[in-house]
Amino acid sequence: METPEAPKQDETDTDAYPSIGDWAQCSADPQYRAAVVDLLGALAYGELSAFERLAEDAKLAPTLDDKAALAGMAAAEFGHYRVLSDRLAGIGENPAEAMQPFAEALESFHRMTAPADWEEGLVKAYVGDSIAADFYREVAVRLDDDTRELVLGVMADTGHAEFAVGKVREAIAADPRIGGRLALWGRRLMGEALSQAQRVVAERDALSNLLIGGTEVRGFDLVEVGKMFNRITEAHTRRMAALGLAS
Amino acid sequence: METPEAPKQDETDTDAYPSIGDWAQCSADPQYRAAVVDLLGALAYGELSAFERLAEDAKLAPTLDDKAALAGMAAAEFGHYRVLSDRLAGIGENPAEAMQPFAEALESFHRMTAPADWEEGLVKAYVGDSIAADFYREVAVRLDDDTRELVLGVMADTGHAEFAVGKVREAIAADPRIGGRLALWGRRLMGEALSQAQRVVAERDALSNLLIGGTEVRGFDLVEVGKMFNRITEAHTRRMAALGLAS
Repeated sequence: METPEAPKQDETDTDAYPSIGDWAQCSADPQYRAAVVDLLGALAYGELSAFERLAEDAKLAPTLDDKAALAGMAAAEFGHYRVLSDRLAGIGENPAEAMQPFAEALESFHRMTAPADWEEGLVKAYVGDSIAADFYREVAVRLDDDTRELVLGVMADTGHAEFAVGKVREAIAADPRIGGRLALWGRRLMGEALSQAQRVVAERDALSNLLIGGTEVRGFDLVEVGKMFNRITEAHTRRMAALGLAS
Repeated sequence: METPEAPKQDETDTDAYPSIGDWAQCSADPQYRAAVVDLLGALAYGELSAFERLAEDAKLAPTLDDKAALAGMAAAEFGHYRVLSDRLAGIGENPAEAMQPFAEALESFHRMTAPADWEEGLVKAYVGDSIAADFYREVAVRLDDDTRELVLGVMADTGHAEFAVGKVREAIAADPRIGGRLALWGRRLMGEALSQAQRVVAERDALSNLLIGGTEVRGFDLVEVGKMFNRITEAHTRRMAALGLAS
């Protein structure tokens, strides 16, 4: 089945942005290099912790087929982790060191949003994956060609959305009362994600500079960061509505 | 580093056994077919639950590198699960149904042997992986060519042993007192594994018939089953000794 109403990506269409050069050219700027190391570290830790949480949620699966499906998604996230980790190693960085600064924010997010049951886990997988994909796309346009290709490649094709959307719709159809609880849950997930994202932006200069254009990579100021968070929130709202959940 | 003192496989050298034919020929016998479906179901559930436990143990990892290493092993186990599950589907069987009869024995094993810390998790990964590999090799010689190739392929190259052995040796070198506790732990793991294996043999006629030669695949009687368990236990003893642990 299709993912309902994919968020419009016109504003972040990569074709609309000219190339800023390849990694060899751009990484000569130490600030740009630091920002990309931060970004890859954050994404790598995100994938590793997504692996852990999906594997954990697989325990809640009502059937062996569901368990295997979630385990498969977890294994796919680990594959993404490896791509990011290999790139970090390939540019001479220690992956564990690059990830460490983001461990606390991501662990906090997961600790604050531990699913109480299978349906909450599915909504979290769907919402988390979608927000991550939105963020990847937003940030990709600000990157050199090589890093952009890597980031968009890692984002593609996780298959979470389809599976989770189908299962959540089935669950709501079977028992419409759970819709209210899951709507509340979706709001909480988005709130925690924004709160941790703001924490990271406040703490990591290099990464924030990339986002607000401080490295002059692109004219992108604080107003633009606000707009980016708005776009991601709006896409979340549309997705929740398509799921039949008020957000 | 190398795995210490790999168990001698002379007695189960696959070259010593002539082919009994391919899957198309052998599966014409409904008892043989049922035995292989049982075997693949048991192995598939074993891989899926190994995935879950390794992912769980990754949480105990003292460093991000260790966490990533364990997550990678979990992802590899999931890859094996997929190979077995695809084969079951390919011969017209429902993988979840084939796995279900073995869920309880494997879950019991894992419930009885939940590691209390990182080192216990490593010893369990090593012991579990090695016992599984021994069992795969023992049973492989009783199989048709196609199933044998599949089973030996799934067994190969998990990389658990090297990693776990290195880490456990480091831990014992750093604090020799933990050796006693880990030796006890190794005995408990082997005891629980044998106990659950005997339960499965008692409950699953088709699989047991394959093991004791009831399908006349090979002259393999109850004495031989006992010998097989002995060989696996001896290999375990040698491995524990090589780790510096009395068994």
